[in-house]
Amino acid sequence: MMTTTPTLPVLGQLEAFQSIVGAQYVYVDEEVLSQYASDETEDLHFPPDVVIKPRTADEISAILKICNQYKIPVTPRGGGTGLSGGALPQMGGVLLAMERMNSILEIDEHNLQVITEPGVITEVLQDAVREKGLFYPPDPSSRGTCLIGGNIAENSGGPKAVKYGVVKDYVLNLEVVLPTGEIIWTGANVLKNATGYNLTQLVVGSEGTLGIVTKIVLKLLPHPKLDLLMLVPFKSAENACAAVSAIFRAGYLPSALEFMERDALEWVMKFVDNSVVAIDEETKAHLLIEVDGNDIEVLMKEMEGISEVVMGFDCGEILFADDAQQKAELWKLRRRVGEAVKSHSVYKEEDTVVPRAELPTLLNGVKEIGKKYGFHSVCYGHAGDGNLHVNIIKGELSDEQWNGSLKNGIREIFELVKTLGGTISGEHGIGLVQKEYMDIIFDPVSMNLMRQIKAVFDPNNILNRGKIFDA
Amino acid sequence: MMTTTPTLPVLGQLEAFQSIVGAQYVYVDEEVLSQYASDETEDLHFPPDVVIKPRTADEISAILKICNQYKIPVTPRGGGTGLSGGALPQMGGVLLAMERMNSILEIDEHNLQVITEPGVITEVLQDAVREKGLFYPPDPSSRGTCLIGGNIAENSGGPKAVKYGVVKDYVLNLEVVLPTGEIIWTGANVLKNATGYNLTQLVVGSEGTLGIVTKIVLKLLPHPKLDLLMLVPFKSAENACAAVSAIFRAGYLPSALEFMERDALEWVMKFVDNSVVAIDEETKAHLLIEVDGNDIEVLMKEMEGISEVVMGFDCGEILFADDAQQKAELWKLRRRVGEAVKSHSVYKEEDTVVPRAELPTLLNGVKEIGKKYGFHSVCYGHAGDGNLHVNIIKGELSDEQWNGSLKNGIREIFELVKTLGGTISGEHGIGLVQKEYMDIIFDPVSMNLMRQIKAVFDPNNILNRGKIFDA
Repeated sequence: MMTTTPTLPVLGQLEAFQSIVGAQYVYVDEEVLSQYASDETEDLHFPPDVVIKPRTADEISAILKICNQYKIPVTPRGGGTGLSGGALPQMGGVLLAMERMNSILEIDEHNLQVITEPGVITEVLQDAVREKGLFYPPDPSSRGTCLIGGNIAENSGGPKAVKYGVVKDYVLNLEVVLPTGEIIWTGANVLKNATGYNLTQLVVGSEGTLGIVTKIVLKLLPHPKLDLLMLVPFKSAENACAAVSAIFRAGYLPSALEFMERDALEWVMKFVDNSVVAIDEETKAHLLIEVDGNDIEVLMKEMEGISEVVMGFDCGEILFADDAQQKAELWKLRRRVGEAVKSHSVYKEEDTVVPRAELPTLLNGVKEIGKKYGFHSVCYGHAGDGNLHVNIIKGELSDEQWNGSLKNGIREIFELVKTLGGTISGEHGIGLVQKEYMDIIFDPVSMNLMRQIKAVFDPNNILNRGKIFDA
Repeated sequence: MMTTTPTLPVLGQLEAFQSIVGAQYVYVDEEVLSQYASDETEDLHFPPDVVIKPRTADEISAILKICNQYKIPVTPRGGGTGLSGGALPQMGGVLLAMERMNSILEIDEHNLQVITEPGVITEVLQDAVREKGLFYPPDPSSRGTCLIGGNIAENSGGPKAVKYGVVKDYVLNLEVVLPTGEIIWTGANVLKNATGYNLTQLVVGSEGTLGIVTKIVLKLLPHPKLDLLMLVPFKSAENACAAVSAIFRAGYLPSALEFMERDALEWVMKFVDNSVVAIDEETKAHLLIEVDGNDIEVLMKEMEGISEVVMGFDCGEILFADDAQQKAELWKLRRRVGEAVKSHSVYKEEDTVVPRAELPTLLNGVKEIGKKYGFHSVCYGHAGDGNLHVNIIKGELSDEQWNGSLKNGIREIFELVKTLGGTISGEHGIGLVQKEYMDIIFDPVSMNLMRQIKAVFDPNNILNRGKIFDA
């Protein structure tokens, strides 16, 4: 499907774009446009009118000045791994692919900070600081292909968030090109800052709607020296969820606490052709639990203590990962669940998040709503954070149901989430596909504040227009 | 000095205010107005025209609707312990004293959260959650008298911030009354949130200029079971500062790492009449270092390791606190340094913050600038965060120097801070007294964004007008 929206006088501006970034970095051929038409969100496909790959903030500034003048829609894009359609150029216009801005500018070992461009792959950044003994914890499952700039845009999380927090907890300062072409720094390179409004945190998680991030200053930690991992099977998914908050109440703070329904683990084992785990017939769900630190005896005690807690929830035989390879295999399974589900069926993913003790209620509610609307769901996610990814499988649903009444089912899930004190996205963002549900979480007054903030940054509404809000 | 600014037709509104909160909670007598005319900032004194003590968000909403209609300035006030004049009603008008909204609404042991009103004293809140084995880390020195709502407004820090972060890292969700009288919630009661712009973090640290916080949802942690404390003397203040970043580079993460120049410790020992420490003649500065956790052997090892690091910086004999009482005495000294300095002389406090490895350069620079402008300074603060409180002592300075050329000296300090990657407030805010230096940190484009955000929330500019920006 190629549905170029003829919203802009691109041809008139093409030469200008070419003179800014070099002709070889401005693309209008259908093959390239098609490559940049999709991200990982469902099966959506919207080719832009032109793809531009800038190298510097000044180039982006010059591009945005033109787009702002002619009101050309601009969609910034990182690794294209997003799950809410934040990088989809559904308005056509200019797609700004950030992949050439891929330098790590400075790893400051004295101050435990890194300054990086946005086009660096997250795992590349993690490995680079790891070599200096340093730790950048946020690690979305897509870390091998996603870009750090996209992580900033979506306020990404990942398994380590339960102990170490999400992206927003590591961002100290940002260089941002505003839609009007002006370039600002949002803060300072410090751990504490009480100087004016927190523009940094306003930009983090704003899904590329307020500005284009061109330099990023991140806080780092000393890298923990050791970690231990266990996989715990449960006969009841509800019990697995209930065990989660019990672990914290017992005073433990795991470095990861992941939940997988039976289907999730089975599908991914097939998908990656790895049978490292033997799944008992009675097993309905697993928890994958990691602890980390610098003292092996302390970690062993924590693992024992956590084992005692989970045994109170009628779990099966616990698998303790023996060595680095087994740990890597277990983590690979968890990280690739999303792909496995996607390869199995068309699906929609809902990124629910609730206070963690409400997980059993949420899971039960999702299944009840599924029965009502006739859909099957596969649930997994970062249980320690109360962040449950609900994958709704198309399966036998007709296209009419899939594109029609299913929305009511999703709305019921999100309304349940709201009553439990939660919200409709923990780490994937709102983007294009979840914006119709924003009214569940925010009243019109709050939505209006957000729209007006958007207008402050982007008076002509050119930047990632139609994301978070209707255009 | 009583300089009531005749900016408003208060008398016409007094009856309305009385009918909203009850006549006994509306004050116009000079004695009460004078009580609310100052906070802890220098020797400033600005009586409001009326003090109102509301009890509910609905009452505040009704009050703000009137003030918004008649453009009456409104200044919210917590415990009045602020150091940048954020709670000073320098425009006259209505002072909203939040002290009656002092209920802790729910301590949720299942989800490790607390929901509180803003008028609760920070230490009362900490003690209440501590009784359940839970931990709310941010602990400004004023925690015995400051209010949690004021901490939200200023994004307060304190000694524990180095390991546990500042207020912003614990705020999950806020109920806020907007200047127009509308009541919103900013987020959800969850650990991860990627749902629209981060209104929560926009309100945190906004110094009461965007809305009045009326309910606060905070994240809690399991309380660490143990801590150890040591006091390390140094023959050179520069060496003490240099040791700070070396401790982190060696892989340690203390739960507090405080710096005090010799004068600071001497003055506070006199002030509280406690000679728990014998200060050697050669000693120029101290570091107070705490580690916490759940395993005594691990903590002992950490203390040994940190001791080895600091001994590389020509330190004197380390004092290890023997018992709870000695720890309490050492902490009391540190916490009361500010009061001691204030009792010693009129002073101005600059809340500088830099990347921590830049502390020695900052300290040297402050002393050089002091020589140039003829002022003595006493420096102390949260060295682990790079957050150095520079107390400029009036001493022999004339009133002309104090109110005139000294500003140039302060500007030079802040310009140095900026070149070191830092900023002009780490935890005290900008308020009234630092706003003239904001141009050092933010260019006109960023300042304009902030002003426009202010106008989005507060179109009539009634709420804490003249704070952060000129009125």
